[in-house]
Amino acid sequence: MASKEEITQFLRNVFPQAPIEVEAAAPMSAIVRFKVTEKSLRPGGSVSGPVLMTLADTALYVAILATIGIVPMAVTTNLNINFLRMPKAEKDVVGECKMIKVGKTLAIGEVFIYSDGEEAPVAHATGTYSIPPNRDLKTANR
Amino acid sequence: MASKEEITQFLRNVFPQAPIEVEAAAPMSAIVRFKVTEKSLRPGGSVSGPVLMTLADTALYVAILATIGIVPMAVTTNLNINFLRMPKAEKDVVGECKMIKVGKTLAIGEVFIYSDGEEAPVAHATGTYSIPPNRDLKTANR
Amino acid sequence: MASKEEITQFLRNVFPQAPIEVEAAAPMSAIVRFKVTEKSLRPGGSVSGPVLMTLADTALYVAILATIGIVPMAVTTNLNINFLRMPKAEKDVVGECKMIKVGKTLAIGEVFIYSDGEEAPVAHATGTYSIPPNRDLKTANR
Amino acid sequence: MASKEEITQFLRNVFPQAPIEVEAAAPMSAIVRFKVTEKSLRPGGSVSGPVLMTLADTALYVAILATIGIVPMAVTTNLNINFLRMPKAEKDVVGECKMIKVGKTLAIGEVFIYSDGEEAPVAHATGTYSIPPNRDLKTANR
Repeated sequence: MASKEEITQFLRNVFPQAPIEVEAAAPMSAIVRFKVTEKSLRPGGSVSGPVLMTLADTALYVAILATIGIVPMAVTTNLNINFLRMPKAEKDVVGECKMIKVGKTLAIGEVFIYSDGEEAPVAHATGTYSIPPNRDLKTANR
Repeated sequence: MASKEEITQFLRNVFPQAPIEVEAAAPMSAIVRFKVTEKSLRPGGSVSGPVLMTLADTALYVAILATIGIVPMAVTTNLNINFLRMPKAEKDVVGECKMIKVGKTLAIGEVFIYSDGEEAPVAHATGTYSIPPNRDLKTANR
Repeated sequence: MASKEEITQFLRNVFPQAPIEVEAAAPMSAIVRFKVTEKSLRPGGSVSGPVLMTLADTALYVAILATIGIVPMAVTTNLNINFLRMPKAEKDVVGECKMIKVGKTLAIGEVFIYSDGEEAPVAHATGTYSIPPNRDLKTANR
Repeated sequence: MASKEEITQFLRNVFPQAPIEVEAAAPMSAIVRFKVTEKSLRPGGSVSGPVLMTLADTALYVAILATIGIVPMAVTTNLNINFLRMPKAEKDVVGECKMIKVGKTLAIGEVFIYSDGEEAPVAHATGTYSIPPNRDLKTANR
């Protein structure tokens, strides 16, 4: 298990430029915000698909770290995302992740993504992370 | 149909900062390069998952534009990606897209992603784009 | 909207041999049971993957019919399923579907599948159905 | 590695009733036929989605067995399928599988599905199998 503060610190070290903010992190769940700027938009004035995919992937990573501790080498093996509605251009996007299963070698979760404050999701993703077998050593040494 | 040059120009207008280069574009296929920099890396020194997802999504977009012309409002509805191997940190990643079907309202294709010059793919994606119904008017007015 | 009884009757007419039972059906959700027999098992004594995929697909179909009425020509366009645990061989499998979005032309939902009475899901699926444009006429004529 | 004949024999033992025929099996690839009967159809006279999913899953399984030998406990962990066109009701469906990667613990491949003799695919699937770690013992003992 890692706390919201530990995860935030870890992400800042490894992805210093990512416009990502951890809003909540607890075993089996996480809420992560992507701060939308001009750069994140696509034609039509909406947040781009890659931004939503980045957010989904990060929300899964944060929820896994919150569940099993800081495991830098956990890697995505599969991500499936459905885009549901155009996000609002002027709003951040927020990903709410619930882990479905965290096993010894694979962790699977889902993420609903919302334009900040809106009720209807703009995307839904399911993702699988592979957890390295020697994670106990790694987390012990962190 | 749009040429490689038209698509390159279009992408530069709408995504001026994207480190993306169209290497080939023909009806039903495209090859797109993502120029890897320090910013694209993740812990362990590998290209990050979101970079590969961005590349897959863009390669599909380019192949669709090459097939049906410049249709800005085509949007991704589903993307599924499997990550196969760690990309080489010091190499660009290249996505080779083949469209499987381009229908009136949906276009589906697949993308193999490689570290530049390597034989074994680092990721494989399948994606669906929704094509707006009034695309003829839009392309006529572009 | 169609009731549980109308959907059960419809499924019996079109899939007379399917070992499927609608347990609940309401707008945006459904619970469907697949009655496991010898035939549904695979090596190792577990329920086969295709049975779980059939159940996921059917649960989505039932939830959509419960939401928009009997629309025979609604067809799956995408299904993504993650298998989480071996189902118990001696138990039925039950799919609990929640629709995420039912739009004019596409309906997207997710299904958690359980061995009957167990707490941990054996599979999780996300699926998209395409809804034919002239559904009002069809449902009016049914 | 297992031959087409060994795989056919194995499948007959474990799935005696499956209307499946192995047409080709070689390392990293397979061609599998599903013999369509009245039972496989859905409203509108087309082959049902679950039949295509079963075929995709089986084609992957056959290609994996052809690559690493008879490993009964290999199990699907993820399957993603896009349905492209209505299959012809009166024709068998044929799945052509190419493995993308067969690693120590995960095997990933793709399957194009055709109505027998037709040129345009009716579906495309990508799937991942988990390979049990002690497969060498198992295959040695088979």
